[in-house]
Amino acid sequence: MTTTAQCLSAYKGRSVLITGGLGFIGSNLARKLVEIGDVEVSIIDALVPDQGGNLFNIEDIKSRVKVQIADMGDDYVINHLVGGVDYIFNLAGNVSHLESMLRPQHDLELNCAAQLTLLEACRNFNPYVKIVFTSTRQVYGKPIYLPVDEQHRVMPVDINGIHKLAAENYHQLYHRVYGLRAVCLRLTNTYGPRQLVRHNRQGFIGWFIRQTLDGGVIELFGEGRQRRDMNYVDDVVEALLLAGASESAEGEIFNLGGTPVSLSALAGELVSLTGRGSISPVPFPLERQLIDIGNAYSSYQKIKTALGWSPHTPLAQGLAHTVEFYERNRTHYWEPDANTVRRSNAAAPGD
Amino acid sequence: MTTTAQCLSAYKGRSVLITGGLGFIGSNLARKLVEIGDVEVSIIDALVPDQGGNLFNIEDIKSRVKVQIADMGDDYVINHLVGGVDYIFNLAGNVSHLESMLRPQHDLELNCAAQLTLLEACRNFNPYVKIVFTSTRQVYGKPIYLPVDEQHRVMPVDINGIHKLAAENYHQLYHRVYGLRAVCLRLTNTYGPRQLVRHNRQGFIGWFIRQTLDGGVIELFGEGRQRRDMNYVDDVVEALLLAGASESAEGEIFNLGGTPVSLSALAGELVSLTGRGSISPVPFPLERQLIDIGNAYSSYQKIKTALGWSPHTPLAQGLAHTVEFYERNRTHYWEPDANTVRRSNAAAPGD
Repeated sequence: MTTTAQCLSAYKGRSVLITGGLGFIGSNLARKLVEIGDVEVSIIDALVPDQGGNLFNIEDIKSRVKVQIADMGDDYVINHLVGGVDYIFNLAGNVSHLESMLRPQHDLELNCAAQLTLLEACRNFNPYVKIVFTSTRQVYGKPIYLPVDEQHRVMPVDINGIHKLAAENYHQLYHRVYGLRAVCLRLTNTYGPRQLVRHNRQGFIGWFIRQTLDGGVIELFGEGRQRRDMNYVDDVVEALLLAGASESAEGEIFNLGGTPVSLSALAGELVSLTGRGSISPVPFPLERQLIDIGNAYSSYQKIKTALGWSPHTPLAQGLAHTVEFYERNRTHYWEPDANTVRRSNAAAPGD
Repeated sequence: MTTTAQCLSAYKGRSVLITGGLGFIGSNLARKLVEIGDVEVSIIDALVPDQGGNLFNIEDIKSRVKVQIADMGDDYVINHLVGGVDYIFNLAGNVSHLESMLRPQHDLELNCAAQLTLLEACRNFNPYVKIVFTSTRQVYGKPIYLPVDEQHRVMPVDINGIHKLAAENYHQLYHRVYGLRAVCLRLTNTYGPRQLVRHNRQGFIGWFIRQTLDGGVIELFGEGRQRRDMNYVDDVVEALLLAGASESAEGEIFNLGGTPVSLSALAGELVSLTGRGSISPVPFPLERQLIDIGNAYSSYQKIKTALGWSPHTPLAQGLAHTVEFYERNRTHYWEPDANTVRRSNAAAPGD
């Protein structure tokens, strides 16, 4: 795309910090920036267990990125790291909805306290830096109309959503009050290579893929009738880069989004793509149902109009790339011995 | 009022915990509960400096309330205190908008982390307790229409507002997910006896009163044209008691509110009431202007319809009571030696 090509040149000769850069989306972004060439890429990631950070995600580009394993909430570290960078892609955070209900204070540390530390560091030591913050469609809660646009009322249905909303508010506040050049993207379900698939607490797509490749059973709560939209990670990376390169995006909130698909259709697609796995409807577990949001998909009209972004990877193609990746790199994303670890294998439809 | 009389009987023979109970509103509530009689009143208050907690506020009822000086974020203390109580009036929190911008992490501790500690304690050790949480009109941010009702979009303009909104969301979430019997009130400017008047970071009314009684100058930013509504503390205490006694209020958010008055009219009223002090317009300081919200007043139609609450203390009468209180108890609310402490004496219009 012309738009993207123009935007990519904005990063040439620049310095970029990615928080949570060893995770799923962060590492795909880092790879893209390395591919552009002449971009100084730094990563901070705490490798919080079960959050998706994985050194293998950057194994083949590790000589071309600087990695700091540290907590973003540590102001000594972050005050130093933000100095002199041109762009911050702020992807660090707790991403599990269910875990946030079990350990709310931990979620508060990762999604609020650490965000304040980063923003205070920018305000004090790099007030002209551009910041792209990844939030989540989850802040809207149970949709009252579909597709959900940016005017939809926010009503988070779990602790994670409350804290992501607070972190969005921080970014918007620091923009209004201190002129910090921050933009927020509300991501929908993202899938693709390098996503954590070891457990089912980080979105249903990775877990469905995992179950299929293991020849297991995809358990669908409520028969999988919920319809969700999904973005392939390369499309999300493109949106991040477009938002970072655009001055007019500063202070704005943009949805990403795509064509809605039912969970049962997604599962069917995966089973037919791989020729493995099977599908089984199961009753909705109470703790999931309480934070489930039913059908949910977003309008991406605002970012399409403002920045020219649309998702352009067809689901079948994105899934094929993803499956191929995990087949090739299975050992780095499965448990050391998957057979000895038994977990509930139904997906998290709240995601 | 009949409504109130009926509601007050709900508290007879019951046990009530007030968080932040040594503060302005909390101590007035404690006094009212003691006056009802046959109510077991406990208070937890950390006496965080400059937040308004003051042991003198309960001096003459101290033999009739149990006081624990402790941080609500300390789970050992709070787990113990919530056990067996019937009502929690949850008033603890950081209340300064300006201070929240200077020390955002401190505000996060007081207004988010400690609230999660309380709610987790209730969920685990007293899931049937009734909780009345005091939030603030400030969560609406700069009004897009007036008066602001509960459907008005929320867009906090400072860190304090972001965190109070998160704490509201916690209460609503714990209601929806765990059935906790929580109700939120969004208070407007409250004034009356026992408010902190030592500095100007806790609302303009107390500070105006203080300046008048000192024969000082009330400095009005932007000539004091901003119109705000104000509730006398006895009316706020009545709303708290009504909300606590009502089953149908659970899960709801209610504005308080009243008749809007310009800051210059309020200042004029005080000068004429006391025959002291003077008024001077001054330029708007930048750090205040950045978080100021202009005209702001709330519709209290929802709580009027649902619970029969209206503010019934006329401003002149409320101010007269307040002035009389501080004249009588000046030594407990002024600095030890006011003349040696010089501060900027303009009020915080963001409140």
